[in-house]
Amino acid sequence: MNAEPFLQLDRVIHEKGRLAIMSLLAASPQLAFTEMRDTLNMTDGNITAHLRTLQEAGYVSVTKEFQGGRPLTTFALTSRGRRAFTTYINLLEQIVQQTKSGK
Amino acid sequence: MNAEPFLQLDRVIHEKGRLAIMSLLAASPQLAFTEMRDTLNMTDGNITAHLRTLQEAGYVSVTKEFQGGRPLTTFALTSRGRRAFTTYINLLEQIVQQTKSGK
Repeated sequence: MNAEPFLQLDRVIHEKGRLAIMSLLAASPQLAFTEMRDTLNMTDGNITAHLRTLQEAGYVSVTKEFQGGRPLTTFALTSRGRRAFTTYINLLEQIVQQTKSGK
Repeated sequence: MNAEPFLQLDRVIHEKGRLAIMSLLAASPQLAFTEMRDTLNMTDGNITAHLRTLQEAGYVSVTKEFQGGRPLTTFALTSRGRRAFTTYINLLEQIVQQTKSGK
């Protein structure tokens, strides 16, 4: 077995809550907080903590604006976050393939 | 995006050190402690802690025997561990495919 793909897995992304958030953001230009929370069925506290970790890693940006007089907070992957996520998914794919080939 | 595969990921297996151990054991009938430690480049303390967690979950069995007068400790996946690992890898595959299809 090649241990490299396991060693290289990014711990920031690997946590399953953050992996779900990154995957969700990878499929959209940006998403509102409430939309993410409801799709992932997370508590406010839980998703807030994960989003903060992702922001601190430089993987996610936050935008606050007013829409129709109401505050709206949206999140998006940064280009760095997108690169890190692509690398992570490619490693997962290697792990799956390695396992299925029995090596 | 379908959040189910993320929610279903087994936390016991998902930790990257334990994922590496499970993958290694899935490819062999059994392995000696030292062989696993050296392949995965882990410290004794680290791999011991992970193996204990996997044993407590019922995923890994430990066998102690004497070989040529020397004690030999080997580890193997249990059938429950193999089932849990297969489920986990199938979920990873869904996550990879979902991501690659952009959904």
